[in-house]
Amino acid sequence: MDNTVTLAHGAGGKQTSQLIDSVFKAHFANPDFTADDAAVLQVDSGRLAFTTDGFIVSPYEFPGGNIGKLSICGTVNDLSCMGAKPLYLACSFVIEEGFPLDKLEEIAAAMEKTAKEAGVRIVAGDTKVAGKGQVDHIFITTTGIGRLMDCAHTSGKYAKPGDAVIVTGDIGRHGCAILLARNEFGIDADVTSDCAPLWGTVKKMFDTTDQIHVVRDATRGGVGTVLYEIADQSHVGIQLDAQKIPVAGEVSGVCGMLGLEPLYLACEGRLVVFVPKEQAQAVVDTLHQCPYSKNAAVIGEVTADMPGKVVMKTEIGLQTLLPQPGGELLPRIC
Amino acid sequence: MDNTVTLAHGAGGKQTSQLIDSVFKAHFANPDFTADDAAVLQVDSGRLAFTTDGFIVSPYEFPGGNIGKLSICGTVNDLSCMGAKPLYLACSFVIEEGFPLDKLEEIAAAMEKTAKEAGVRIVAGDTKVAGKGQVDHIFITTTGIGRLMDCAHTSGKYAKPGDAVIVTGDIGRHGCAILLARNEFGIDADVTSDCAPLWGTVKKMFDTTDQIHVVRDATRGGVGTVLYEIADQSHVGIQLDAQKIPVAGEVSGVCGMLGLEPLYLACEGRLVVFVPKEQAQAVVDTLHQCPYSKNAAVIGEVTADMPGKVVMKTEIGLQTLLPQPGGELLPRIC
Repeated sequence: MDNTVTLAHGAGGKQTSQLIDSVFKAHFANPDFTADDAAVLQVDSGRLAFTTDGFIVSPYEFPGGNIGKLSICGTVNDLSCMGAKPLYLACSFVIEEGFPLDKLEEIAAAMEKTAKEAGVRIVAGDTKVAGKGQVDHIFITTTGIGRLMDCAHTSGKYAKPGDAVIVTGDIGRHGCAILLARNEFGIDADVTSDCAPLWGTVKKMFDTTDQIHVVRDATRGGVGTVLYEIADQSHVGIQLDAQKIPVAGEVSGVCGMLGLEPLYLACEGRLVVFVPKEQAQAVVDTLHQCPYSKNAAVIGEVTADMPGKVVMKTEIGLQTLLPQPGGELLPRIC
Repeated sequence: MDNTVTLAHGAGGKQTSQLIDSVFKAHFANPDFTADDAAVLQVDSGRLAFTTDGFIVSPYEFPGGNIGKLSICGTVNDLSCMGAKPLYLACSFVIEEGFPLDKLEEIAAAMEKTAKEAGVRIVAGDTKVAGKGQVDHIFITTTGIGRLMDCAHTSGKYAKPGDAVIVTGDIGRHGCAILLARNEFGIDADVTSDCAPLWGTVKKMFDTTDQIHVVRDATRGGVGTVLYEIADQSHVGIQLDAQKIPVAGEVSGVCGMLGLEPLYLACEGRLVVFVPKEQAQAVVDTLHQCPYSKNAAVIGEVTADMPGKVVMKTEIGLQTLLPQPGGELLPRIC
């Protein structure tokens, strides 16, 4: 076989089968993986979560991961935020003619490794090839099915005055890592993405308390955007304590140089969690035991005042309104 | 709002919500449609079918449909071929910056109309925007969940010597329509795509007999490629009667001019069905009652001889081996 992806690989014939066998089937092998038009899954009755996400990140490789790892984490985390154990994934690829096969291998390997860690099976897929210049390298859409835990009833609508606002780690890493990976600013800083599959983390939180009101992953738009959405959906105010928001030194350095606010930089392995204040310490203690949330912290609380607004208490005690998110900070972050 | 899609529409903030509300939620409104990270679906225990498909057709509008209609038909038909009633769809969009919003509206309207006809609900989605030149207009990935009928046990592996090979209508329309829509050949012919949702058709076939061995939609690679796959998976030979293969006059005219074989042109609303010879007439009679299979016909039979091969009996009685499909006839057909 040639060492790049060709249009024939996308034609649905012999070459498509060969590509599927040599790359995808080789990595994704599991008893539910299908070569037919659809995977057949035996399910028990109950509540399933169903979610889809397209990944077009540029560059497709970055410190801390690649588009394959990201595409699994994104959908696993969307299911996890619902309190749903990720069970099955379907993956759809659009690949540019001429894409290196060894890079496709690396992407598939990262997908399988991440899926294994999250305990989810890749069971169905699709491969399309577009001509040179018709798609930028590679796009992946992953769609997931998960099973909701009985105790899980979380939503952006369920934040309540008196809730503590927890973030599961230092923020803005993914956005910062992508920014630097594009080499447009001539800044040399050692920032890795926080991209990680968080089902294990969420499960441990639910084992700690069943009073989790909101769990959201702070992806596009970052923690600031997610908090504004929750404030809006729940008709509550959110008050943040600037000093308590964990930001890695290298991230805040880059943000300082470029005039960016880490609260609006995407994370791909950080959750925003709302629980009653009384449960907050137990949840944070649990998070500190988990591999991707060693820096978890309570960063604020929910108020009945100022519904729909996010207010920041600064280090010198002033209260300022966090600016409403909007516009396009950085395209193709995920 | 501006009249084109902007990068801000893909940033996950206010503009993304506005786009989702004004276009997608407006069209896809149904009780299971979610604004959260995932849709929550109440399911009964049993066998579910799960399938995904990316659509990158060029041009994105063509006689007989557009990428929206196609993206619903493709996944609905993949589920239907498994004997699974389509229940839920998730849709992921990658849109080029500058894409006209009125065209996006038309695409969403076609998706909803086709989903309604197929009895399937669009419950989850995702929208990404890539910069100018980074994606060719619009790509859509649809992922479907269906419920397998108890009587359904079809697979490309289950063809048996003595089976009749049925095609549900005249072949090659979709491939031919796309070819002409590209205006590369200066041919003026009135060919519309056969693109159609086929759950109703499949259901009526299963109501007629529970002895359906294989149902496949003849998309990329056309009927010829699908037959070769089935011959290979089932270790049987397939003998076709050239005279019985339905081809519309305008399609065979275009194929004659361009030296193409209709058997290798994609269909998006045609099934290949294998049933025991004794059931064939009843199935064809049923198909003739359905809206998208008025020209259904028995085109051949399965033999124990020549396993893995497809042989064509020509009009003057000669037998020739149908060429093995391969290579890229026409990229971005679906």
